[in-house]
Amino acid sequence: MLRQDFASDNTHGAAPEALDALVAANAGAVDSYGEDGYCARAADLIRGLLDADAEVRFVASGTAANAISLAALCRPFERVLAHAEAHVAVAETGAPNAFGHGLTIRGLPGASARIDSEALKAVLAEPEHAHAQPPAALSLTQATEYGAVYGLDHLRRLTAAAKAKGLGVHMDGARLANAIAAGFDPKAIPGLGVDLLVVGGTKAGMTPTEALVIFDKALARRFDARLKNAGQLPSKSRFYAAPWIGMLESGAYQRHAAHANAMARKLAAECGLKALHPVESNGLFAELSPERHKRLTDAGWLAFRCDDGSVRFMCAWATTEAVVEELAAAIRATA
Amino acid sequence: MLRQDFASDNTHGAAPEALDALVAANAGAVDSYGEDGYCARAADLIRGLLDADAEVRFVASGTAANAISLAALCRPFERVLAHAEAHVAVAETGAPNAFGHGLTIRGLPGASARIDSEALKAVLAEPEHAHAQPPAALSLTQATEYGAVYGLDHLRRLTAAAKAKGLGVHMDGARLANAIAAGFDPKAIPGLGVDLLVVGGTKAGMTPTEALVIFDKALARRFDARLKNAGQLPSKSRFYAAPWIGMLESGAYQRHAAHANAMARKLAAECGLKALHPVESNGLFAELSPERHKRLTDAGWLAFRCDDGSVRFMCAWATTEAVVEELAAAIRATA
Amino acid sequence: MLRQDFASDNTHGAAPEALDALVAANAGAVDSYGEDGYCARAADLIRGLLDADAEVRFVASGTAANAISLAALCRPFERVLAHAEAHVAVAETGAPNAFGHGLTIRGLPGASARIDSEALKAVLAEPEHAHAQPPAALSLTQATEYGAVYGLDHLRRLTAAAKAKGLGVHMDGARLANAIAAGFDPKAIPGLGVDLLVVGGTKAGMTPTEALVIFDKALARRFDARLKNAGQLPSKSRFYAAPWIGMLESGAYQRHAAHANAMARKLAAECGLKALHPVESNGLFAELSPERHKRLTDAGWLAFRCDDGSVRFMCAWATTEAVVEELAAAIRATA
Amino acid sequence: MLRQDFASDNTHGAAPEALDALVAANAGAVDSYGEDGYCARAADLIRGLLDADAEVRFVASGTAANAISLAALCRPFERVLAHAEAHVAVAETGAPNAFGHGLTIRGLPGASARIDSEALKAVLAEPEHAHAQPPAALSLTQATEYGAVYGLDHLRRLTAAAKAKGLGVHMDGARLANAIAAGFDPKAIPGLGVDLLVVGGTKAGMTPTEALVIFDKALARRFDARLKNAGQLPSKSRFYAAPWIGMLESGAYQRHAAHANAMARKLAAECGLKALHPVESNGLFAELSPERHKRLTDAGWLAFRCDDGSVRFMCAWATTEAVVEELAAAIRATA
Repeated sequence: MLRQDFASDNTHGAAPEALDALVAANAGAVDSYGEDGYCARAADLIRGLLDADAEVRFVASGTAANAISLAALCRPFERVLAHAEAHVAVAETGAPNAFGHGLTIRGLPGASARIDSEALKAVLAEPEHAHAQPPAALSLTQATEYGAVYGLDHLRRLTAAAKAKGLGVHMDGARLANAIAAGFDPKAIPGLGVDLLVVGGTKAGMTPTEALVIFDKALARRFDARLKNAGQLPSKSRFYAAPWIGMLESGAYQRHAAHANAMARKLAAECGLKALHPVESNGLFAELSPERHKRLTDAGWLAFRCDDGSVRFMCAWATTEAVVEELAAAIRATA
Repeated sequence: MLRQDFASDNTHGAAPEALDALVAANAGAVDSYGEDGYCARAADLIRGLLDADAEVRFVASGTAANAISLAALCRPFERVLAHAEAHVAVAETGAPNAFGHGLTIRGLPGASARIDSEALKAVLAEPEHAHAQPPAALSLTQATEYGAVYGLDHLRRLTAAAKAKGLGVHMDGARLANAIAAGFDPKAIPGLGVDLLVVGGTKAGMTPTEALVIFDKALARRFDARLKNAGQLPSKSRFYAAPWIGMLESGAYQRHAAHANAMARKLAAECGLKALHPVESNGLFAELSPERHKRLTDAGWLAFRCDDGSVRFMCAWATTEAVVEELAAAIRATA
Repeated sequence: MLRQDFASDNTHGAAPEALDALVAANAGAVDSYGEDGYCARAADLIRGLLDADAEVRFVASGTAANAISLAALCRPFERVLAHAEAHVAVAETGAPNAFGHGLTIRGLPGASARIDSEALKAVLAEPEHAHAQPPAALSLTQATEYGAVYGLDHLRRLTAAAKAKGLGVHMDGARLANAIAAGFDPKAIPGLGVDLLVVGGTKAGMTPTEALVIFDKALARRFDARLKNAGQLPSKSRFYAAPWIGMLESGAYQRHAAHANAMARKLAAECGLKALHPVESNGLFAELSPERHKRLTDAGWLAFRCDDGSVRFMCAWATTEAVVEELAAAIRATA
Repeated sequence: MLRQDFASDNTHGAAPEALDALVAANAGAVDSYGEDGYCARAADLIRGLLDADAEVRFVASGTAANAISLAALCRPFERVLAHAEAHVAVAETGAPNAFGHGLTIRGLPGASARIDSEALKAVLAEPEHAHAQPPAALSLTQATEYGAVYGLDHLRRLTAAAKAKGLGVHMDGARLANAIAAGFDPKAIPGLGVDLLVVGGTKAGMTPTEALVIFDKALARRFDARLKNAGQLPSKSRFYAAPWIGMLESGAYQRHAAHANAMARKLAAECGLKALHPVESNGLFAELSPERHKRLTDAGWLAFRCDDGSVRFMCAWATTEAVVEELAAAIRATA
């Protein structure tokens, strides 16, 4: 059995603040299907985090939340623009395409999975015709799949270009907490023109839950029917809301993310490998030869090689300094 | 705020056995996406319950599990046969149709939401042509949406007729625990020719989780990809498996269901209303005039009127004798 | 081999005016995909027929045109309201559901397949919730599947009720020519609030072609991409446009429909059967016992029994007085 | 108005043999929906062409026929392998993805749009996991989108590799006639393991019609329902079958294709441009600078620049030697 500590940020359980809140929410008979007081309170907290008068829903799956969002923004004869390495493009087994009934995703280039603004503009400038799907939505990931964090100006250039062409904007915030901990201001999101935002709870250290934020009021109409139709209107919704209360009220949401980020930096500093992407959030994407990778596996550590050739080490709320040091030593020993 | 105690069996939290197991499963870094030891152990327990060598997956949503099942058994130019009052037909906002890309559901008659065998046979005997969707799957609910429990002979007649025509068989067991507590033997399910079974955890007293059992080995191929594509391959899968371990190992799964059934019978006996359906599982579907219903609401109790005119009172693992007596008195007071 | 003369109005070939125009359009190299001059001219003629500044497209299939229309008006978590006997509901093998990715159709009552206004209003007055698909589109058929023709006031009541609730309106005009010949003014359609209209060419006596009229300018955006995505953007589009030119410029479109209607009335008058629906367009739906129906079949005539028990005899542009008399005599001989 | 003669092979009308047969099929009342004698006879002729006991259907659209085929071979959580420049991948506005409910297409490399065998084998050797769509179908185009014709050995390598991994095989034969005229033996297709073949009628010089050939008997079950559901079960089906009768019985199908191929070779020989792809069927893909391209456009000739930078000139049954000489001179004059 290989050690899962750095395999992903979803191999860890829930942080105490999340789990305690879940347990505390267990008592009594309450409304179901999102109508309970826990959902109301958690939604308020997320609106506070974003400083936005937006609709908020709690769902079980980030893949589903992304797919539902893209399906809401893009019709089957249209196309989503996303980074070529985006989770929605390469790691969701076609969920956005299926929920979107055949929409396709066009991959854009850009270092460290940040979309290059000029590449986006070039695609948006292409003439439209009936024989190919024109772009209808832009999907951004913050922090990115390679651990980078978009700067606000970069995001503004991207969303302004998209909005100018009438595209909807989706943000996959599976690791938004880590981006926030890295300095990204979540209160800037509404002003960017994001229509639908998925805020990750699971990777942030909760039991399974994701928050889906609907900034566009027109999109919010019949959203519960949309969710139910997609199998994402939980009956015992309190269990998807409560962890948010525990994490946001206590500040643990940002605190744990900051810790995870710090652990990634510590690992980068101590393991002796060359980082192939900036270590701006909770992952280290490092250069590691197949031979050394095998030795690390033989030593009992699981780590995945990414499409770009880098080997990924993810840190989480539960990652201790001790285990980072243990892994760093194991990596050094493969040299 | 109306009291939710009898509004549904999903207004209650999780039973201690489920919640304790969830908390116990929190520690450490483990595999994700169903590869963890909790999923393996819970799947074994469900195989034991059914005495079947079947594949088992844990998902977040019963609606999704039903929809995925029907989509696996039926193509868009085909049709599902289900009771006209089945949950898949009337209470899932088209999820089976959407996951099934346009499959439709043909409603069959039958008392208390049990499909009438002769009605099924008559539909199966209809000649097939290209201008209407022919039936490809039969969907059964055990216990039914009106609280009835199918007898084994009844199920055999239905599934034999379906199988003889090449149909796949899906069983929605959102309240299978209550059917088992009422005397239905789950070990009979494999012999019935059921291809896909959804075993409800949520309504049985767990945090959100449903077990999807795949009896047909051919259907099991690429099922994880199917689940991921449908947004139902949870990353922190341990949290969907653990409650099953707690409930099945302790016997609480059946014990709580038996209690819920007993509470429904007690309510039926004490409230003075005429039951419009047999009280065989955990719900009472009673005759209650709009005037009396309003008085009950005014007294603070939430209860829904069903499509057939009956008013539904659902009991659950957490329903106490005291609250049953309290409601029974409140109902009597509306007379 | 049974005689197909009255089996449907699509068992006949094309009228000379349509076929001649098709042959005349064959010469030379012209634009494809709807960009040719034939499409432009035919679209102008249809705009003239309807007195409307609408977008017009020519497609191969009425089933596809209906399905595309409903998919444009209704999302998968929403529902179409149509007569329970509407072609879209019972004779298109789920095409609207598939093109609409799971939208469902709720059947409404009404004599002779005309939707009852009060029934529509009652459905529209139902409260909306997240657990069932709310209505988003109304689908009307003119002339109806049972040969009736809606009066303008009736249509106004229906569309006004739908529009007041924000529904889109689709009209299936597979036999619009016959309705026009019966006195319905096509220039009234735009004022009714119809968003998408399918005008039947095939049943009106053309080679396969249907006109899809888009009154709503917002819906017209990217409609060619929508059609291509749906397999309904013909390359050699001239062949779908030319028959319309031949039929509309010559007046044959209305003249042939009037003839077909007259033949249905003649058959009704001479065959001795009781008409179960008003003979207002080109079909007779008659009372005929299974015994007499069998005798008619044995005598070599094909006629279908409808879901409501009536036996259908369809007339077309090519139906001669002689063949009507021949059939009428054959029917009388079964008595 | 630009001259359309070489813009595509679908800018031309129908060959006399096709049109005459269509006109001849117009008389009388016959079965509809593919049950007529014309369909039976045309299907026999296609079976003869392929020397195969296969099911044959006639549909209106090649895009739809391809999309229906891929949807039949591939589920939404699976993927089609096709050349990166294949029509299904780049020129059908997502129709395969939409008909296939979210299936995606992975583009493979290979010169002149022929899939490279080694590249296919490499993809098929990739390990499969639940987080990406595994391949389920291989789509081949014969002749290819860049005018090349696969040799039999090449096809055997591709289909053998696909079949060994359990993939279904689709062949887009929009220009199969041109491949046959170039020496490809259509009787070899069944032995290749092709499951579904689309034989192009439209580009071969017919009025709109495509033949869909179903070699796999299991796939053939309920195929008419599948077609109806997809809007591709024509009512007046005779008009889609008749052109095949006229073209195949007379040998015009191959004769016209041979002529089109010869015209492409003549153009290549006379225009003075460098061919960027082998001129093996009816298209010339030539090197032409933007400046010269503009001059050619200014001289009145429409020609499209392809994604690979080549400028495409398509010949058809109706292309005369005179017009080839006229264009060749015009091209030379741009130098």
